[in-house]
Amino acid sequence: MAYITVPEGLPGIRGLLTFSPETAKPMGELAQTLMRGASPLTMAQREMIAAFVSSRNHCDYCDRCHTAIAAEHLGGSDDDYALLQQVRRDPEGAPISAKMKALLAIAGKVQQDGKLVTAADVERARAEGATDKEIHDVVLIAAAFCMFNRYVDGLGTWQPDDPPFYKEAGRMTAERGYTNREPYRPLER
Amino acid sequence: MAYITVPEGLPGIRGLLTFSPETAKPMGELAQTLMRGASPLTMAQREMIAAFVSSRNHCDYCDRCHTAIAAEHLGGSDDDYALLQQVRRDPEGAPISAKMKALLAIAGKVQQDGKLVTAADVERARAEGATDKEIHDVVLIAAAFCMFNRYVDGLGTWQPDDPPFYKEAGRMTAERGYTNREPYRPLER
Repeated sequence: MAYITVPEGLPGIRGLLTFSPETAKPMGELAQTLMRGASPLTMAQREMIAAFVSSRNHCDYCDRCHTAIAAEHLGGSDDDYALLQQVRRDPEGAPISAKMKALLAIAGKVQQDGKLVTAADVERARAEGATDKEIHDVVLIAAAFCMFNRYVDGLGTWQPDDPPFYKEAGRMTAERGYTNREPYRPLER
Repeated sequence: MAYITVPEGLPGIRGLLTFSPETAKPMGELAQTLMRGASPLTMAQREMIAAFVSSRNHCDYCDRCHTAIAAEHLGGSDDDYALLQQVRRDPEGAPISAKMKALLAIAGKVQQDGKLVTAADVERARAEGATDKEIHDVVLIAAAFCMFNRYVDGLGTWQPDDPPFYKEAGRMTAERGYTNREPYRPLER
């Protein structure tokens, strides 16, 4: 049960967004712009970064949701889920582009402390073809998930241990995005 | 110089917000709602929390800006600045309310990892009179500054070492808020 009174049956960030619609609005718009707006990074790549950062922050709710969203963008097969597990375990060894490896290395540093990112990290990404926009976006995605993860965990939210819940959440978000969606429906607990 | 090309003479987050107006809009609206919207916490208290978290993240730019904003809300005297230095050094010993001490203890944990916040931390804040709204807001302010701090530092922004710059930035933000402001003017470097 969360540390504050949120509507019954709304897990993770859902209860918090419902508790505080005033802050939910710009947070949803930030997620929509950053994760689904115009970018040289695909939605799958951006969600892969979000899942990676959430896993490093040990925020199980966000990790499982964004892993599912990334997997849906990739096609939704078991192989897509397996790739995401491999990326989280061993990003440098995973079968992803050299550019994505360089961007994930930056994201991993931002997750710990923004000051850890060096000019060499950025040069590595540029050498693999990353533009200013991609470097900007990977830093802001990693930073934003440091916010979302802390919001979800710092308020002690309820987080279901139910694989179909996350798969469905992934499917819905991949399809509809972060804004203009119907109010969340309570789950059975 | 920042790791990406931002307009000349715009330090810290200013260059980034100008580089990416699409994400700047919801980020500004989140700051405006969270730091200046309806809340049982005063603007000075909210800015004190932001400065405290920014100092723990060693983000000098945000630390100095939000210290100055908090000081301006308190009246802008040298004693107000001294109080904020004392809060950062020794929050439990500073001459602030027992409720603020309990909220800063929560903010300090969120800065590290949301999962560190315990039911006992929240009970302590409640015993000093904190409501659900205040507990929600302190967690989200701390989480949001973990984002802003990483954005500013992860992109290696230019950060002036010029006390009058921060004092003026504090005065302007205390007066006008985070949205509906004129475009930033470049500084001499």
